[in-house]
Amino acid sequence: MMSERSVPPTISEVAAEAGVGRSTAARTLGGYGYVSPEVRERVLAAAERIGYRTNALARSMSTGVSHTLGVIVADIANPFFGGVVRGISDASRSRGFDTLVLSTHEDLDEEVAAINVLIDKRVDGIIVASAALDAASASHIEQARARGIKVVLVDRAVPGLDLDAVLIDNRAAARGAVARLVDARHRRIGFVWGPPIEGRPRRRRDLVDGAVRNLWTDGERLQGYLDALDDEGIVFDADLVMVGAKTEEHAQAEVARMLALPDPPTALFCTENDAMTGSLRAIRESGLRIAEDISLIGFDDSSWAAVIEPPLTMIEQPTLALGAKAAEILLGAIDAGEGRSAAPRGPSAFHTLETRLVERASVRRPRAADGSARRG
Amino acid sequence: MMSERSVPPTISEVAAEAGVGRSTAARTLGGYGYVSPEVRERVLAAAERIGYRTNALARSMSTGVSHTLGVIVADIANPFFGGVVRGISDASRSRGFDTLVLSTHEDLDEEVAAINVLIDKRVDGIIVASAALDAASASHIEQARARGIKVVLVDRAVPGLDLDAVLIDNRAAARGAVARLVDARHRRIGFVWGPPIEGRPRRRRDLVDGAVRNLWTDGERLQGYLDALDDEGIVFDADLVMVGAKTEEHAQAEVARMLALPDPPTALFCTENDAMTGSLRAIRESGLRIAEDISLIGFDDSSWAAVIEPPLTMIEQPTLALGAKAAEILLGAIDAGEGRSAAPRGPSAFHTLETRLVERASVRRPRAADGSARRG
Repeated sequence: MMSERSVPPTISEVAAEAGVGRSTAARTLGGYGYVSPEVRERVLAAAERIGYRTNALARSMSTGVSHTLGVIVADIANPFFGGVVRGISDASRSRGFDTLVLSTHEDLDEEVAAINVLIDKRVDGIIVASAALDAASASHIEQARARGIKVVLVDRAVPGLDLDAVLIDNRAAARGAVARLVDARHRRIGFVWGPPIEGRPRRRRDLVDGAVRNLWTDGERLQGYLDALDDEGIVFDADLVMVGAKTEEHAQAEVARMLALPDPPTALFCTENDAMTGSLRAIRESGLRIAEDISLIGFDDSSWAAVIEPPLTMIEQPTLALGAKAAEILLGAIDAGEGRSAAPRGPSAFHTLETRLVERASVRRPRAADGSARRG
Repeated sequence: MMSERSVPPTISEVAAEAGVGRSTAARTLGGYGYVSPEVRERVLAAAERIGYRTNALARSMSTGVSHTLGVIVADIANPFFGGVVRGISDASRSRGFDTLVLSTHEDLDEEVAAINVLIDKRVDGIIVASAALDAASASHIEQARARGIKVVLVDRAVPGLDLDAVLIDNRAAARGAVARLVDARHRRIGFVWGPPIEGRPRRRRDLVDGAVRNLWTDGERLQGYLDALDDEGIVFDADLVMVGAKTEEHAQAEVARMLALPDPPTALFCTENDAMTGSLRAIRESGLRIAEDISLIGFDDSSWAAVIEPPLTMIEQPTLALGAKAAEILLGAIDAGEGRSAAPRGPSAFHTLETRLVERASVRRPRAADGSARRG
C-alpha cells in the first residue's frame, strides 16, 4: 500500500473534505457512474489535498479495473451468509468497489454457472463459499484465475486448491461446545444435524465420510464432536447422530427418535439454526424442559437465541469480520496484480477467525450427575 | 407467451430429456458459459423434441440479451430480503436468467450507484426495493429505463413512478393485526417501531409524516395501526408509539419506557423482527409474562417465533412469492421488449400479495377485561 501517512485516507474522508456524500466520492474516485463535472473536480481536488492514493487512482483509470467484486454464496436467505455478504460489501465499498452477489443453493452446477456469469461481467475478483469438495471439482475456479481474476475462499476450504481462505475453525468450535456439555457431566450428547445420507452407518468413519462428502463445514463440525468425546473417553453411539435430509422438519423427527431411545441424550449439539429450531420443536412435543431436562448448544448466535426462555448458549460466528477479511485479502491481491502494492504477496494461506461460545442458560448438569439418567 | 402446449416446458424438463443437469441445460439454452459441443447438441435436440421455446431462443441468440437480472435490496442480511432474493433467483433461473444482487443499506446514494453498476453490467432488467420516496428522487430508475432496461419494484411502491410494483398491503396487514388485539379487548396497544425522528410529536399527522419520510412501508404500517384504533374509537396516545433509532437496543429502551407509564400498554404490535426481539428483552427485564401480562403480535414470521414459549402470533409475508412474482413480471416485460410475446403489455400496476396472520399463543385478554388494568 502506498500512502503519505501511516493510515491512508479513506473515501469517507475525501467525501468529507469535498463536502459530498460517500457514494458520490466513491463514484468519482472509482470512475464509474454519473458525477457532474463540477462535483467531480471538487472530489479530485479534495483527494489530492488529503493524499488519497492518487497514483493508484490514475493507474486504475488506465488499466480499466471494473471496480466490482463478485460474491458467490450457498444460500443468500441464510442469515450467516447475509452477514458475510454485508461484511464484504461494507469493506469493499469503502474502497470504491461494488459487490455483485450470486446464490447457488449448494449446487456445484449453479456455482459453475455463477463463476461464468462473473467472468462475463468482468469483475476484478471473486469471493466464493464453494460447494467444491476438492481441487478436482474446482476447475471453474481455476478458469476464473486463468483469466486474471483474483479469487478468495470464504467459510469453506477446498482441499488441494492453492487459494487464500477466510474461515472459522469449525472443528475446534464444535469440540469446544461439546466439551462444555461434557464439563457439565453430560455423556449422552446428540448431534443435530449430521450427514444427509440414506441409512445409518454404525462406524464413525462412514458417518464422517458422509458428512464431508456433502459439505466441508459439516465434516469439520462432526469431527469436532467426535474429538470432544474422545478427549473424555466417551464411547461414540451412532444412534445419537442425526442422519438424513438437512431440514427443520427432519431434525425434529430425528431428535424425537433420539428422545425415545432407551438411553436418550441429556444434551444436544445443534450445528445450524434450523437444526436448533427443529430440536426445540421436538423438545416441546416431548414435554421436556430446556436446561432442566435437556441441555442445548447451537451454532450461529442470533438475537432470537438470546430472547428465548431460557436464553440459549450459542457459538457466535464473526460473520461481518469473515466478509471484511475476505474483501481485504482480495482487494490486496487486486492491488498487487495492478502493481499498486509495493509489498510482495505471500503464499496463500488459511486465515482463521475466532468464534466465541456465548454462555447463556441452556446448559445444566443432567438430573442424575453421572449423565445416564433415564427420564420417564 | 408463445408455447406449443398450455404449460410451456421448463429448462428442468429439457435437462431431464437430455439427461444433463439443469445448469448445463440453462447454460446451453441461455447461450452463456462453457458447454461441450456434444452436450450442447444433445440439449438443443431435447429442447426441440419437447417444444422448448426454440423461436425465442433463436431470437435471443441474435438480440444479445445478457440473461442476467439485477436485484437491489436494502439489506441483504435481513431474512425478509433473503427470501425475496431467493424467490427471484429461483424463478429467473428456471428461465435461464442469472441474478446479480446488490445491497444498499437503505441509502439512496448507494442505490443510485447500484443502478449505475447494473447499467454498466448490461443486465436485461432490474428489481428494486427502492429507498426513493417519490418520483423526484427516482431519476436513477428513469435513467435505467431510458436505456431500455426493464424495472419492477418490490416490497415498496414509489408514489408517482409509473412502474409495476409487487407488494403486500402493509396497511391492511397492520390493521388486521391490531384489530386482532382490539378483539381480545386491548385498548392500550404499543407500536414498535415508529418514525426514526428526534423528539416525540403529539400529533398523529406528524408521526405518520415522520414515518413515511423514512420508509414507505413504515408509514403504511403506522397508518394501519391508526386505522384499527379509529375503527374501534380508541383514542390515539403518542406515548405508545416508539420514536427514534430503528435498532433492537432502542426498541428495548422504548418498550421499557412504555411499560413504566402510569397507564402502560397491555399489548404490543411489532413491525420488524428486531423490534420484536428488543420488545422481548424489555418484557423479560420487567418481569412480565408474554400473553398472561402482555400480548404480542409481530411482523415477519420465522421458525424462531414458532419455537419461543409461548409461540408468537405473527404476520407472515410471502417472501418467496413476492420475489417470484416480481421476476415473472420482469421476465414478461423483457420478453415483450424483445418481441417474444404476442400479448400486449398492460399498464403498470400494483400487484398485491396476501399476508397471513399466523395465530399462535401470544395474544390473550388483558387481565382486567376493559383493557386498562394497571400492573404493579
